[in-house]
Amino acid sequence: MDQIYFDYGATTPCDPLVVKAMEPYFFERFGNASSPHESGRTARKALEDSREILARFLGSQRDEIIFTSGATESNNQAVFGAARAQRKKGNHIIISKIEHHSVFEPVEFLKSHGYEVSEIDVDENGVVDLKALKAAVKPQTILIAVIHANNEIGSLQPISQIGAITQAKHIPFLVDAVQTVGHIPVDVDELNADFLSLAAHKFYGPKGVGALYARRGTPLARHLLGGDQERGWRASTQNVAGVVGLAKAIELCEQNMAKEAKQQAQLRDRLLAEVPQRIQGVKINGHRQERLSNNAHFSFAGVKGEALLMALDRKGIAASMGSACTSGAIKPSRILKAIGLSNDLALGSLRITLGRWTTTEHIDRLLEELPLIIERLRTHG
Amino acid sequence: MDQIYFDYGATTPCDPLVVKAMEPYFFERFGNASSPHESGRTARKALEDSREILARFLGSQRDEIIFTSGATESNNQAVFGAARAQRKKGNHIIISKIEHHSVFEPVEFLKSHGYEVSEIDVDENGVVDLKALKAAVKPQTILIAVIHANNEIGSLQPISQIGAITQAKHIPFLVDAVQTVGHIPVDVDELNADFLSLAAHKFYGPKGVGALYARRGTPLARHLLGGDQERGWRASTQNVAGVVGLAKAIELCEQNMAKEAKQQAQLRDRLLAEVPQRIQGVKINGHRQERLSNNAHFSFAGVKGEALLMALDRKGIAASMGSACTSGAIKPSRILKAIGLSNDLALGSLRITLGRWTTTEHIDRLLEELPLIIERLRTHG
Repeated sequence: MDQIYFDYGATTPCDPLVVKAMEPYFFERFGNASSPHESGRTARKALEDSREILARFLGSQRDEIIFTSGATESNNQAVFGAARAQRKKGNHIIISKIEHHSVFEPVEFLKSHGYEVSEIDVDENGVVDLKALKAAVKPQTILIAVIHANNEIGSLQPISQIGAITQAKHIPFLVDAVQTVGHIPVDVDELNADFLSLAAHKFYGPKGVGALYARRGTPLARHLLGGDQERGWRASTQNVAGVVGLAKAIELCEQNMAKEAKQQAQLRDRLLAEVPQRIQGVKINGHRQERLSNNAHFSFAGVKGEALLMALDRKGIAASMGSACTSGAIKPSRILKAIGLSNDLALGSLRITLGRWTTTEHIDRLLEELPLIIERLRTHG
Repeated sequence: MDQIYFDYGATTPCDPLVVKAMEPYFFERFGNASSPHESGRTARKALEDSREILARFLGSQRDEIIFTSGATESNNQAVFGAARAQRKKGNHIIISKIEHHSVFEPVEFLKSHGYEVSEIDVDENGVVDLKALKAAVKPQTILIAVIHANNEIGSLQPISQIGAITQAKHIPFLVDAVQTVGHIPVDVDELNADFLSLAAHKFYGPKGVGALYARRGTPLARHLLGGDQERGWRASTQNVAGVVGLAKAIELCEQNMAKEAKQQAQLRDRLLAEVPQRIQGVKINGHRQERLSNNAHFSFAGVKGEALLMALDRKGIAASMGSACTSGAIKPSRILKAIGLSNDLALGSLRITLGRWTTTEHIDRLLEELPLIIERLRTHG
């Protein structure tokens, strides 16, 4: 980590304590959790202890946790699984306009196969229009999906209030909590969530492992078919070391979350205050207060985001425009269009996400370099 | 690993050299391979170097490798993806009767959605009937799937010959090579495979990572939808450490495979020769010669397999009846029924699979304990 890393929203380093917790499960305790012998029992115990840790964090039951390969799989299973299990009930789905690709694309797929989809607008702060969402509900609505905090602009959504609507109407509610789990308290009952997805690598755990919370009794089907792992909800030999890492990462977040969120919010607030002081023609995106404590998102008029990232990178500073999942794209982000940004501002965007190893010096350095780079880019293109 | 472990077919320990290769990718080189900065480039390079290593091993091109969460996902993507991409061509699928659950279940799913499925018989040695397979081909056949070596009884299949048929008929051919990759040479061109699936944890790599080989131009669709990872073929943040581990495991297998296969075959042959000498009423399942070098599979008349495993476990010996994916089940294995075993023999089965850390002493110990246990079980039930 020689770089100054401001891309914790894309992925986080695996905490050294997480790596240490995983290590025994590669060689010494390597068993297949489905195996009927000592080696299998050891693996199974590690898996179930980890399930207990995650369930406790989420305020759920253990048998409501399905370990997956990550949030993309979790979101795919929730969308396709809810649709498949409710084929007889209906074919209408409601999502916000600022869902992550791993919700948006499965829903688009269903749309191309005859499903009706209502996409709910967000305001200029990136917050979902509750009235519009409520008005969109139909008797044949089988799923409502709203992201807990948007991955690009960081705006937190009124999930509990949406959950109250979905609960009253008995419609399964999917909350993509990839950016919030491990960063703020996430309680499935407070949120009224029926499905909730998360990925370990967003909270200092390993890549390639995540979970889907699925409330007991909520209609769901499998997305990976084969063996009977995860109580039949997901086939595939369980990634025991990864799951142990996920659980250890949750434990560390439980201990540090409140303190870290406060520290990161302070550093982030310096950016939100000082960047506009030092640079003209800058817009702060996302809600000013109701946002992820580690997220700052800017648009710079007359600057190409790609060039900005390259210039920062040459100075040893890692940042992003928005989602890493689409960083190859040069068309304006769907999210930034949804909050009403012009193409120019959308393409001139910069996401700064902070994390466990962000220091005051990193912020100082960014505040020093950024105005020089922006000026140079605006002058020389 | 205090146990005597004879369940390498279920999962293998991660080689310590593999763990060492993965380690830097948890903390120091933790980047998201899609990120547009130094940290992302480092991750991307590790990913692409790993892809090169696997491609070389399989005799494929790099852009024919899709990294996945394991063989279940690979098989699901091949079956569902081939079906979806050829909707206009037809709805007939051919599989052998001894496919793994992760092929069988997706095909069953398609069957329940209007697809026609031909299941090809195997002989008493567990080898697919080539003539029957050839005769089953129809103009609307869109996929043929045959496992390279069956995971329970170890019989190797005439994949090259089947591949010659599928190639002549221009039908995509899926080869589930989970039990062979890393153990014997696997060349996609020699096998005439269009899809080939593998899982790292079966060849001393980590759990939770695998790959799907997909020949250029073969009709395929995504199974996980979202971001544009893996050249658009699979959404989800790539598991860089896992992929690095997979590649290191492949390199170690390349170096050791020939020698290990020979050693394991010698030890295994002792079991195949001496178990029937020491115990009456035993049947060896699977082909005597054309089988995995590390697999021995027996049926003991008048013995319950579950009780046998428990008795071995109490002696510190880990083995299985068949697939770990169904070890909860007490109905006779689909595979053993396919080779014509009676329920009694099918339920009295024992799979012994050898691996990198199996010693002569382990075999001695098994040959010593097994007759005593079988006798006790037959006497006292």
